[in-house]
Formats: sequence, C-alpha cells, structure tokens
Amino acid sequence: MTDTALGTRDRIVQTTSRLMQRQGYEGTAIKQISQEARVALSSVYHFFPNGKQELGIAAIRHADVEFADILREAMASTDDPAEAMVATAELLITHLRNSDWLDGCPITATALETASRIPEIQQAVADTFDHWRTLIADKLRAEGAGIAEQDAHDLAHTVINTLEGAELTAQVTRSGEPLEIAGRHLARLVDSYRQGPTRCDR
Amino acid sequence: MTDTALGTRDRIVQTTSRLMQRQGYEGTAIKQISQEARVALSSVYHFFPNGKQELGIAAIRHADVEFADILREAMASTDDPAEAMVATAELLITHLRNSDWLDGCPITATALETASRIPEIQQAVADTFDHWRTLIADKLRAEGAGIAEQDAHDLAHTVINTLEGAELTAQVTRSGEPLEIAGRHLARLVDSYRQGPTRCDR
Repeated sequence: MTDTALGTRDRIVQTTSRLMQRQGYEGTAIKQISQEARVALSSVYHFFPNGKQELGIAAIRHADVEFADILREAMASTDDPAEAMVATAELLITHLRNSDWLDGCPITATALETASRIPEIQQAVADTFDHWRTLIADKLRAEGAGIAEQDAHDLAHTVINTLEGAELTAQVTRSGEPLEIAGRHLARLVDSYRQGPTRCDR
Repeated sequence: MTDTALGTRDRIVQTTSRLMQRQGYEGTAIKQISQEARVALSSVYHFFPNGKQELGIAAIRHADVEFADILREAMASTDDPAEAMVATAELLITHLRNSDWLDGCPITATALETASRIPEIQQAVADTFDHWRTLIADKLRAEGAGIAEQDAHDLAHTVINTLEGAELTAQVTRSGEPLEIAGRHLARLVDSYRQGPTRCDR
C-alpha cells in the first residue's frame, strides 16, 4: 500500500469514527463519509468492499486506540492508582473543552443504537469497552498499588462506566464539574480498596 | 380534552419517547411516530402544532417522569441510603432484562446527539438529569442518612452518571454484572461519606 493509499484509508476511518461519535452508526451514511473525508464513493468501497459494517468496525477499532491513548497517558502520569483517576478525569475535561464539549466517548452513540440489534458492531463495542477496562485494571493490580485481583476487575468496570456517564453529563451541561466530581469519587473508591494503610487508617 | 383525545396524545408521546430511547432524536421522524403510534400524521400535528421539537421535549418530560418513578421506588424501598443504591441497580437490571436489554436510559441517545447543537432539547435533557439527581440527593441528605449537604449534591452526580454508564455496558454485554458492581460501589461510596460511625470505624 502506498503512503497516499494509506493516507486515504486512514482519512476514511477517522472521518467515520468522528461522525459515529457525534451521530451514531445508523445516522452515518457512506455518502456523508465520502463527502466529509473528501474521497470518492468508489474509493470508500475500494478500501471497504463489504460496505458500512466493515467500515463501522474499523472506525470502532480506531476509536478504541484513540481513547486508549488518553487512558494510557493518564495512567502513566502518576504511580498512585487513586491519583490516576483524578488525572484521567482532568484529561477528559481538557479534551471535551477543546472540542467545545462535542467529542465525548467515541462509541456511546453507536453502542446504544446497535446493542441487541447488530451483533458484529455490538461485539466490536464490547471488545473496546473490555480493552479500556483492562488498561484500568492493569494499573490497579500493579505491584505496589495494593488492590486485589477481583477488586481491580470490578473497579475497572465502575471507573469506565462512571467516566462514560460523567462525560455525557459534562457535554449536556457544558461543564467539567461532573467529571471533576467523578475523578474525586473514583479516587476515594479506589483508595478504599487498597490493602495496607488506607484513607480510613490514616 | 376528551378521554380519547388524552389517550391519543399520550400514545404519541409514549411512542416518541420509546423511539428516541432506542434511536435518538435525529433518527426519529414524525412519520415513523405516526405509524408506530397508529395515529394520523395530521393528528400528531394537531397535538404538536410546532412539530418535532415540541414533541421531542414532551417525550423527554415523559421519560423524565418514567425514570423518576423507578428511582423513587428504589429510594423508598429502604431507609438506608447505601442500601438504596443497591436497590436502584437491581431495579434497573430487572427493567433491562424485561426489555431484552433494549431499554436503558431513555434520554442518553438524545442527549449525545443534541448537546451543543439543539439548545431547547439540550435544556430539556439537562433539566431531566437535574431532576433525577435531586431525587438521589434528597435521599442522601434526609434526616438520619448522615450525609452533608455538599456531599449529597456531589454524590448525586456520581450516582446518576455511574448508573448511566453501567446501564450502557449492561446493554452491550447483555449482562446485569456492570450494574450489580455499580450498585455495590455506589453503596460503599455513599457509606464512606456518612457522618458518625462509618464502615471505616466499624
């Protein structure tokens, strides 16, 4: 594949991902993708001969990597797993604010629409959430974090779910407050599961 | 208004609310509403002369009341504010399971699509979230619950946001686990803010 071809495919996937983030899977037509990516319709089908579903899955994978990068950056910013929750919330506030509160979780709209209706898309969404949870759980179960395996697994669920909900409310209210509160609460919750000296004993 | 007229208007609003729950605001056309509600298009415009936006706001208000009833039922089921979190999560699991994991939060899809784009709809969504938070905060700040005013306000944010996110993941994974975990974590978090004897001291 030449650089240009790679560039074109990437542009199609990125455009699809952004459109699905803002308007979901159903509402995103191949025609709109070709227009917004400034790529001929035939070119979209060249890269995605199986059409919208194949492209949709590629866009979810792109969103997966993009959001995982944010999570990884936040996790790497501090050794303390509780502080990492606050850092994640802060990073999400920055990203939301920079997009004028438009770009929240890249797959929530798609997840909602396709659950129990389009199994292949639903599976790609489920895999993505699972990947994000793994990044959180890895941080929580790291040596020195002092959190038991099962607790780390469960906490990862609530961390991702709380951030999801808080991002949505932040978008609706155009305010970082819901995420700021979420970061604080998640830090407290994580801390409460640490073995050895905890907030309670200090 | 006659009983029949009231019935017709209600059916239009309920149908709109259910369609917006599953496919958002943009994807829900007046024509589909009239078909699914088995009501003439002219009848829809009779009740909602200002068209889709007016109907959309009525549907959000309907969803507001419907979900508030679930929250109220859960809050009333126990005096203990922490236990009320578990009860809420369980009730949401039951509702989701009964709809084959289709009917999660009634306004998430609409909230996502309209944030920063359709101010009137965004405002109705924001008012609804605010109403739900108030129901939670009232329980938390009730006499005997032992939670300070500001803590109750902040916790209400995280309770609603965590349940939002957990409902979405429950839909995607067709499993009650994310909500079950959310209920447990929210109970722990609420408990950690109680003044007087807490989990930490026991």
